[in-house]
Amino acid sequence: MIPPNQLLEALEWRYATKVFDPSRKIPNEVWTALEKTLVLTPTSYGLQPYQFLVVQNPATRSALLPHSWGQKQVVDCSHFVVLTARTEMQEADINRLIARVSAVRGLSAESLKFYRDMMLGDVVNGARGKAAHEWATRQSYIALGSLMTAAALLGVDACPMEGFVPAEYDKILNLHGSGYATVVACALGYRAAADKYATLPKVRYLTEELVRVI
Amino acid sequence: MIPPNQLLEALEWRYATKVFDPSRKIPNEVWTALEKTLVLTPTSYGLQPYQFLVVQNPATRSALLPHSWGQKQVVDCSHFVVLTARTEMQEADINRLIARVSAVRGLSAESLKFYRDMMLGDVVNGARGKAAHEWATRQSYIALGSLMTAAALLGVDACPMEGFVPAEYDKILNLHGSGYATVVACALGYRAAADKYATLPKVRYLTEELVRVI
Repeated sequence: MIPPNQLLEALEWRYATKVFDPSRKIPNEVWTALEKTLVLTPTSYGLQPYQFLVVQNPATRSALLPHSWGQKQVVDCSHFVVLTARTEMQEADINRLIARVSAVRGLSAESLKFYRDMMLGDVVNGARGKAAHEWATRQSYIALGSLMTAAALLGVDACPMEGFVPAEYDKILNLHGSGYATVVACALGYRAAADKYATLPKVRYLTEELVRVI
Repeated sequence: MIPPNQLLEALEWRYATKVFDPSRKIPNEVWTALEKTLVLTPTSYGLQPYQFLVVQNPATRSALLPHSWGQKQVVDCSHFVVLTARTEMQEADINRLIARVSAVRGLSAESLKFYRDMMLGDVVNGARGKAAHEWATRQSYIALGSLMTAAALLGVDACPMEGFVPAEYDKILNLHGSGYATVVACALGYRAAADKYATLPKVRYLTEELVRVI
């Protein structure tokens, strides 16, 4: 546990980093914790309907740049994460999770029938199934929120990015036919001393405008 | 900054709490930090297209219960947060942010014209404008991810919830005509000693299945 003021200091310290110091890399131990943060993301039913691509190949990053509104964070950051989401949810996705639950918790698949049927009736054949990619995308955004908060606490800078062309990313990252599509990205690393955005006052609406107690 | 292992301990400790101890309340100082975590959520363009409703009235919580698949977390938790998102984005939303940026950073509205036009051409009149509620919903999910990670670090239990009827929530919470609609919820408080889910092994896919370095 950490004291509340330590959490807030980290969240006040963070900002959407515009200029990364290309010479500074996230140490292995820190990166492993951020990767694990992504893996530990809570998701609806525990279905984890996403993959996280860590784009480290410089040529691939350069290819992404012109489809990223020219934002140099893509090439200059230490770790560039592209968050993807399942394009649809099939019975196989449910079976995969059931097999995993069964293995990790030592339960029979039969004992998980209620859980399996509930998921099938919702995210495959039910209401959420009709908009499964969007539902999966929302789960990726939980991961994004978790990742940025974790990064701030570890002293790692981050820049979340929606400003790119997802279809071009999918092409460059060979996602066609994979069952996953690009939804959002996050550059991680360390701010350059010259990033003037680092010292700008943070702009948020008043707490009483955003939070209503009823 | 905290060491990576402290972050991971907190994330391993957390789980989707099924049974809250109704007698334990989140202390004010801790709650204020969680509220501030919501406020500090990073969003696309900084637009903060959401409101967070903290439902503390017991009668309102009881009214929500039958529309929440009977999940008792709704009534038993310390703080029940309903995350909403803007139903559409209008020019007034952009003007509101520009006014806020202008006030907080001491800049003229004229100097923000490029920023204003970019937002108008995207989330109001452009591609994202066509699916503005969904885009706003994604921003709410960033807040959800941030909130759950922050809660774990402060030793607060949480249960994210998609399992409820949003339209019924909107009615009970008087959201019709407000420009916001319910998208997801999160119960916060402290686990009951009797919650058997607390000790179950966490189920996640292997890191190499979820994270691909390319």
